[in-house]
Amino acid sequence: MQVDGRHYRTIWPTADGRAVEVIDQRRLPHAFEILRLEDLESAARAIETMVVRGAPLIGATAAYGLALAMHVDASDHGIASAYDRLFRTRPTAVNLRWALDDLRQRLHPLVPGERAAAAWRRAAEICDEDVEVCRRIGEAGLELFRKAYAEKGEKKPLRVLTHCNAGWLATVDWGTALAPIYMAHNDGMPVEVWVDETRPRNQGAALTAWELGRHGVRHRLIVDNVGGHLMQHGLVDLCIVGTDRTTARGDVCNKIGTYLKALAAKANNIPFYVALPYTTIDWSVENGADIPIEERDGREVTHIWGKDEEGVLREVQIAPDETPAANYAFDVTPAELVSALITDRGVCEASREGLEELFPERQAGVGPA
Amino acid sequence: MQVDGRHYRTIWPTADGRAVEVIDQRRLPHAFEILRLEDLESAARAIETMVVRGAPLIGATAAYGLALAMHVDASDHGIASAYDRLFRTRPTAVNLRWALDDLRQRLHPLVPGERAAAAWRRAAEICDEDVEVCRRIGEAGLELFRKAYAEKGEKKPLRVLTHCNAGWLATVDWGTALAPIYMAHNDGMPVEVWVDETRPRNQGAALTAWELGRHGVRHRLIVDNVGGHLMQHGLVDLCIVGTDRTTARGDVCNKIGTYLKALAAKANNIPFYVALPYTTIDWSVENGADIPIEERDGREVTHIWGKDEEGVLREVQIAPDETPAANYAFDVTPAELVSALITDRGVCEASREGLEELFPERQAGVGPA
Repeated sequence: MQVDGRHYRTIWPTADGRAVEVIDQRRLPHAFEILRLEDLESAARAIETMVVRGAPLIGATAAYGLALAMHVDASDHGIASAYDRLFRTRPTAVNLRWALDDLRQRLHPLVPGERAAAAWRRAAEICDEDVEVCRRIGEAGLELFRKAYAEKGEKKPLRVLTHCNAGWLATVDWGTALAPIYMAHNDGMPVEVWVDETRPRNQGAALTAWELGRHGVRHRLIVDNVGGHLMQHGLVDLCIVGTDRTTARGDVCNKIGTYLKALAAKANNIPFYVALPYTTIDWSVENGADIPIEERDGREVTHIWGKDEEGVLREVQIAPDETPAANYAFDVTPAELVSALITDRGVCEASREGLEELFPERQAGVGPA
Repeated sequence: MQVDGRHYRTIWPTADGRAVEVIDQRRLPHAFEILRLEDLESAARAIETMVVRGAPLIGATAAYGLALAMHVDASDHGIASAYDRLFRTRPTAVNLRWALDDLRQRLHPLVPGERAAAAWRRAAEICDEDVEVCRRIGEAGLELFRKAYAEKGEKKPLRVLTHCNAGWLATVDWGTALAPIYMAHNDGMPVEVWVDETRPRNQGAALTAWELGRHGVRHRLIVDNVGGHLMQHGLVDLCIVGTDRTTARGDVCNKIGTYLKALAAKANNIPFYVALPYTTIDWSVENGADIPIEERDGREVTHIWGKDEEGVLREVQIAPDETPAANYAFDVTPAELVSALITDRGVCEASREGLEELFPERQAGVGPA
């Protein structure tokens, strides 16, 4: 997507083919800085320290990390130790494992002298495939946006509410939930986005507001409490969010707070869409209530960081000393609150039947996106 | 309520009868400081700058402010100019006007020499009446808490979710929504409170967490996104909130985000109670959707303040520069989502019939609480 008129992906190889560059997402939205990753260790650290985040982008960075390692040691031992180093960075990310397994499997049959170039090509392919998957999600979503805009029967902008960051910063380009928004905008449709702040990590305020602003999409930041009021007053035409895991019957596990917005959308007859690459479907789980929900450090609730008056990034404490906090990272929105799933294969009902129609082979939940 | 073992109200006269003292709420939760208000101007500024907040406490402070003014100039002109100065501080607060009207009306018939003492006595009465109203709300709520605790049929704590700050800091003592919590706790019932952070002004994180902690009530701070997840998983036994305005049919206007929690409570069959003094009932409005909703400065959304590593209170910016933000301060929860209203006259259904049974005289929405 565009940053001040120039097109960026979140990761790209340098012209000399010896390094990759990424946007340092730890500094967003307060600084736009590019980091050069020249070796295995710098790629691994970029994932660990959340220079890059978002499952698809983590997978792509890991693939390039393995390719960079092949420049130094392309032996079987070199593959194994690079795999281990990268795998340890974020051990629960599905895409990380998928990308590493994919590369290892392709490199093993080759002689060491061919491995670096092959790894480099495959990493680039993984990125391109992710872009293609997101582009397809965007096109499928765009149809729904066009219909909603046409149905409004007025020249007013289509008002879309989103939660968290399911934008291009979480993928290689386009994003998932934000892909149809970018396509509608590029297409000349007037779109206005309500950006949920998304406490406690503020991905909406820090990342979604930044991406939309840089690409020139109209948006307004709101606290997570506001969406229900907006929906009651006809100020939201549709909601669209991403997902971390979708069950076989269409229950959606996503950033904490998604469920509250889905309830409000249902109560006010507003479409609630979930955008997802096929890789997030977990065919082994039926009932979303069975998904274990990560509990994170309470410090993410009691402390918050930002830019002070002098432009220095610093953390401030917003609660009394020693306040106990509970920090659940995700919640589950039952399929019956989801109007439709928008996938790289098209749009379907959030139900077992809907999903099986689009994915008759019940493809395993791993892949480039 | 208790602050580290000592009982406090939010406002009290000094022993010499020449000043009042208040807790400086701008500094909470990071510092507990008492401010002495010695004259009209310091009382007016305390309201303007939000040293004191919460409608009942604003009314009480205004009453004392007028009393302090009488020490200096007890003429008719003195009354009028003190009234005007205080009224300008927060022109939309119902209790402020009520308290000022009440005092003016009582002072006018008196000779100037009697006015200071009379004003002082009446201000103290207004405070005592507020405490009594809140105490009654607490007792009415306590019955519901006892029933809910008994019905659990297990020794586990009663888990209560609350939004914003409807505690003793918003009143003179006890609070409204928190009054039954304090009474249950004082009574030995194990109570655990989920405290909604309440963005954007963080009254939950800053004030509710502080009051509960100081009084020794078990609580955990959560971001506003979490309540739905907790309710889905049986981790909330009941919700209780305050209200800024209650319509004649029981619609409830309260801090933004209340509606989302009420939807989640309904969806998960969890009681959702609203605690209110009779003064918040607006008999002139039937449909909550007709209540105009205050839109505040977007800076409250894009910036946040707290205590830095060195203990300095400072503001940080959490969104990109120039991010447009929308900041709606309240929302309306329709009566059908409210399980019951807890008032100083007892508990009733959230409906015209319910309210008229408790308040057959349809008393005007003004008064000391």
